[in-house]
Amino acid sequence: MIRFECDYLEGAPVQVIEAIAKANMEQNAGYGEDTHCEHAKELIRHVCDAPEAKVAFLVGGTQTNLTVIASALKSYQGVIAPQTAHINNHETGAIEATGHKVLSIPTDTGKLTGEQIREVCRQYWNDTHALHIVQPGMVYISQTTEIGTLYSRREIEEIYTVCREYHVLLFIDGARLGYGIESPESDLKLNDFPKLCDVFTIGGTKQGALFGEAVVILDETLKQEFSYHVKQRGGLLAKGWLLGVQFETLFADGLYMKLAKHAADLAVKLHQGFASSGFSFYVDHLTNQQLPILTQEQAKKLGEKYSFDYFADLNNGSFVCRFCTSWATQEENVEALLTDIKKI
Amino acid sequence: MIRFECDYLEGAPVQVIEAIAKANMEQNAGYGEDTHCEHAKELIRHVCDAPEAKVAFLVGGTQTNLTVIASALKSYQGVIAPQTAHINNHETGAIEATGHKVLSIPTDTGKLTGEQIREVCRQYWNDTHALHIVQPGMVYISQTTEIGTLYSRREIEEIYTVCREYHVLLFIDGARLGYGIESPESDLKLNDFPKLCDVFTIGGTKQGALFGEAVVILDETLKQEFSYHVKQRGGLLAKGWLLGVQFETLFADGLYMKLAKHAADLAVKLHQGFASSGFSFYVDHLTNQQLPILTQEQAKKLGEKYSFDYFADLNNGSFVCRFCTSWATQEENVEALLTDIKKI
Amino acid sequence: MIRFECDYLEGAPVQVIEAIAKANMEQNAGYGEDTHCEHAKELIRHVCDAPEAKVAFLVGGTQTNLTVIASALKSYQGVIAPQTAHINNHETGAIEATGHKVLSIPTDTGKLTGEQIREVCRQYWNDTHALHIVQPGMVYISQTTEIGTLYSRREIEEIYTVCREYHVLLFIDGARLGYGIESPESDLKLNDFPKLCDVFTIGGTKQGALFGEAVVILDETLKQEFSYHVKQRGGLLAKGWLLGVQFETLFADGLYMKLAKHAADLAVKLHQGFASSGFSFYVDHLTNQQLPILTQEQAKKLGEKYSFDYFADLNNGSFVCRFCTSWATQEENVEALLTDIKKI
Amino acid sequence: MIRFECDYLEGAPVQVIEAIAKANMEQNAGYGEDTHCEHAKELIRHVCDAPEAKVAFLVGGTQTNLTVIASALKSYQGVIAPQTAHINNHETGAIEATGHKVLSIPTDTGKLTGEQIREVCRQYWNDTHALHIVQPGMVYISQTTEIGTLYSRREIEEIYTVCREYHVLLFIDGARLGYGIESPESDLKLNDFPKLCDVFTIGGTKQGALFGEAVVILDETLKQEFSYHVKQRGGLLAKGWLLGVQFETLFADGLYMKLAKHAADLAVKLHQGFASSGFSFYVDHLTNQQLPILTQEQAKKLGEKYSFDYFADLNNGSFVCRFCTSWATQEENVEALLTDIKKI
Repeated sequence: MIRFECDYLEGAPVQVIEAIAKANMEQNAGYGEDTHCEHAKELIRHVCDAPEAKVAFLVGGTQTNLTVIASALKSYQGVIAPQTAHINNHETGAIEATGHKVLSIPTDTGKLTGEQIREVCRQYWNDTHALHIVQPGMVYISQTTEIGTLYSRREIEEIYTVCREYHVLLFIDGARLGYGIESPESDLKLNDFPKLCDVFTIGGTKQGALFGEAVVILDETLKQEFSYHVKQRGGLLAKGWLLGVQFETLFADGLYMKLAKHAADLAVKLHQGFASSGFSFYVDHLTNQQLPILTQEQAKKLGEKYSFDYFADLNNGSFVCRFCTSWATQEENVEALLTDIKKI
Repeated sequence: MIRFECDYLEGAPVQVIEAIAKANMEQNAGYGEDTHCEHAKELIRHVCDAPEAKVAFLVGGTQTNLTVIASALKSYQGVIAPQTAHINNHETGAIEATGHKVLSIPTDTGKLTGEQIREVCRQYWNDTHALHIVQPGMVYISQTTEIGTLYSRREIEEIYTVCREYHVLLFIDGARLGYGIESPESDLKLNDFPKLCDVFTIGGTKQGALFGEAVVILDETLKQEFSYHVKQRGGLLAKGWLLGVQFETLFADGLYMKLAKHAADLAVKLHQGFASSGFSFYVDHLTNQQLPILTQEQAKKLGEKYSFDYFADLNNGSFVCRFCTSWATQEENVEALLTDIKKI
Repeated sequence: MIRFECDYLEGAPVQVIEAIAKANMEQNAGYGEDTHCEHAKELIRHVCDAPEAKVAFLVGGTQTNLTVIASALKSYQGVIAPQTAHINNHETGAIEATGHKVLSIPTDTGKLTGEQIREVCRQYWNDTHALHIVQPGMVYISQTTEIGTLYSRREIEEIYTVCREYHVLLFIDGARLGYGIESPESDLKLNDFPKLCDVFTIGGTKQGALFGEAVVILDETLKQEFSYHVKQRGGLLAKGWLLGVQFETLFADGLYMKLAKHAADLAVKLHQGFASSGFSFYVDHLTNQQLPILTQEQAKKLGEKYSFDYFADLNNGSFVCRFCTSWATQEENVEALLTDIKKI
Repeated sequence: MIRFECDYLEGAPVQVIEAIAKANMEQNAGYGEDTHCEHAKELIRHVCDAPEAKVAFLVGGTQTNLTVIASALKSYQGVIAPQTAHINNHETGAIEATGHKVLSIPTDTGKLTGEQIREVCRQYWNDTHALHIVQPGMVYISQTTEIGTLYSRREIEEIYTVCREYHVLLFIDGARLGYGIESPESDLKLNDFPKLCDVFTIGGTKQGALFGEAVVILDETLKQEFSYHVKQRGGLLAKGWLLGVQFETLFADGLYMKLAKHAADLAVKLHQGFASSGFSFYVDHLTNQQLPILTQEQAKKLGEKYSFDYFADLNNGSFVCRFCTSWATQEENVEALLTDIKKI
């Protein structure tokens, strides 16, 4: 079985494994107060052109999302998010479990617009009974989105302008940030993000780490509050140096972006292959989660040799299927797939 | 100014005030463990034909909703509700503050259907990643709804059938239950509700009490759990007899339903008056929250003499306006209004 | 049965009942945005010499405590309180249900000292692993305490000095504030409290209202945050004018303090009577909760005619019993009791 | 610097690192639904003689504690724990952040007795106002305790008897379970624990894993509930096989217990060395956290060459110092230390 169903099937590149093995018997201070973490944070601040940023490392995505959001919001505030957002659908109510409402906005593209956010904020602040309504305190978007779409610079700028106008923090979930940046459709680099939001993450789990998300915090208050929340929510890793070593390796000499480019290039190849074989897409984009539409028969046949995700049932005999590339995807497997889809 | 903007402008009928004054210097046991509460609960069980029900009294609506829902749900469960639900829009995230997601469903009528609920439950239980999704644990509907619509017996039966199929509790918020029952469109009586849901409320605040909601619990587990939650959430009134005395008075000899009928009859009159003067309605129904559509000019003119609620801006120069009747509405005021709307 | 077991057996003085009856058919704005509330707040600010204070009215004590504390604390902060505190023992974990730890300190007197608070804060801020410890964010004390003791001006000043030193808010629960002030041992007046803490309450439930606690907020941030929390926690009364009318009546011409003095005077009488009959006290003080020690036999005999609270079992055949006076206690009942205890 | 300050300074034994490296490029299913986890669980059930147990893997200790406790308790329940418990002091209020009170009991030994637990439960259930008090729902103890003491079989049996009597679950935090078992003072083996409690953990972080705690669940309800809570609280590792591989390696052929014995033997050596050099101990025991008392001068001198933890200031010029052994401690370092303490 050749597997395309998600982008976290494998562990980590050999450099990461070797770095962990190398540091293994060092005696490092606990809870991330070690030199590897310090170094990794410095590297990330450097590559982001954000010398004043606070960088923190957490183990997983849901943990990161709930900790960032709970740290940023007052009890009576909620987080605006697209209806397709991971925090709205796939975290078992983790945000609500910290006491906060996800103010979800319907979207066809997986993306929010500045205007949609403005409308929610305007309605809130104009309502004479605003006291009875959840106050928008943060906006959550993801780059790339849960359906693989990509925000342009202009789109994020518009969102951030509205956020600042209404004193709402902007949080960009970058679980697939690198894959987005290396997409040919992207007009954003890593060092653009610190200027475009209040907090964002640089995903490790899907992009070359065994586990780990780097949180880059620009907002001053959030900088001060964050560590307490990490500990309270169970996110403080005893051997935090494991995170430090991994991000140190990924950011030491451009490995992170090289891995991202590999996945992004294969995503383009995958897209072009499906398109040239006549398949249409649920949403048309060039990032690492490709969503071609297959008939039940096609999906069944392809499923004999390849694994992929049934993303949505179109209730017309066709399915949206998800094929992911990652840093670990092998080019010959993509080629094999593309050869086979020509035949089905 | 003649006021129609809501149904809780006045205090309570003189009988209620007199009953409080009469009991005032009795020395009653605290926390609702007094004979008035006992008697009031007995009266409610009787009028509901529900000898096995547990009845509890709380002070306010948001408090009641959050306590019932938090008592019924496990941490990882959420409550299905129409998007227009009070718990979804007008309780400052009170449900989320107890850790639970409101699983809101879009609706034009303010009502859910059994089929909509079935779809949410089916999707959840069919999802191979259900562990990552909030589990439906309760359904919240209100009778009458927040926009004045009314569920029929068949509609609630269909909903409750689905609820039992998926082991989801059904909670009916009856803040305006009496007003619904006495509407000419209703085919439900008070003693129908214990058979149609797991827990419902009989609203006092809007229907003849100074304050207070009676919670009628049919579900056995919820019966056992409820009191602890009331105390923990700050809903246990020290002088609980104040609630007992009020509900005792309202249910002693049919006062509650007489008050409800008064409001319901005037609602019909109001509706007919608006209709016969050529006004259309945002939603057409015969309950105590009438939603005629007025032009800005009409609204302005009427606003000189009458107060009412601007419910929604249709963005075409017209507004949905809310005119409420209640137990305290005076017939001559309705007549004056109907005379005046003919002229505008 | 002549009842002394608590100080909330009766409703309210006739003036309060009459004021409610009088306002009953007025059409007041909802949610406390009415003129009675406005007036009552003005009266309280005036009597407290605190023109800048924000005053809010809530229905009950646990509700008030949880709302004040949850409004003031960050997620990772806790509230320091004596082990005997109501919030630590008798609110079913209401504070923890909002996510906060009660940092309880053992005490024989029901009171905290500045030095005890300093020690907790000093330990926290000196700990190199403070990140792993709940940060003190508020101090909760009650006047009078749960066992009837009274803080002197100097004691509260010392506490408040420590609080400001460590940026910890001081909250004084005044459920029995008036009874404390009118005790002959008190050196504090109502208008002293705004200078001695960041937020305090003036209890209504036990001191002349059917229900209700007035929250007086001095801290600027808390002023801004408080109303949102009240609504979210279910504490916003629809007919808020009921609270306004009651506090208006209690503070219009010194009624509140007159009622308090009545209870305080009878408490002294009660104390002297027990003392002169040879009884000793669990804690010796002159406020409205008297705690004489009775043998089982004495308690049993007295219990035939009088009701009182078994406060603690001394496990030596004797019990601490609680006899309360209130605004409603009748002098002849106290006299009857004192006559009878001479005989047992 | 030779380091003794804690037992999680190093990564993991070479076998664990090699096993991760070996599995690294396998394509494993996400979220712990892989064959390594399955195998590891089977091994643990086998070594525990608990074929019916549910085993789950989490990343860290605080995360594990908060998830187990929040899964087991109803909202109005709390967890009984010794005052010295990790959950009471060093998790930044993580338990309270899930809404539950820690009902802490003072103890000199770091251990609870059955009688202490019985007293709390008896008081609760005998209290006529139990509704106002946090209900005991779980007991938390740790083996070894936070100060290194060890429960005997009889002590745990007594505790568990009380727990069952009062329908309270018993949770044993085994962050150092292996080190306890291999202590010469222990009369308990791993396969005893499933019979002595409702849920316990087998610590990895401190005992041979890079990270990870195995949760062994015996209680049927908790078995069903647990996974949802893990996801909701952010504890579900995407690449869960990392946990599976580690525990698979540790339990494949007795490695876990061999590592534990190494640490336990060196702990005995350390204890004897301090004792024979005339040092006394804060608490005298033979487990891996030794707590000798040093004068400030001794501590300072020793601190030039060795690192250790200042555990407590005795305020008499002496300090309780903590010296830990672990699977990674080198015997020659212990010997060097013992030679040096003879000289100071």
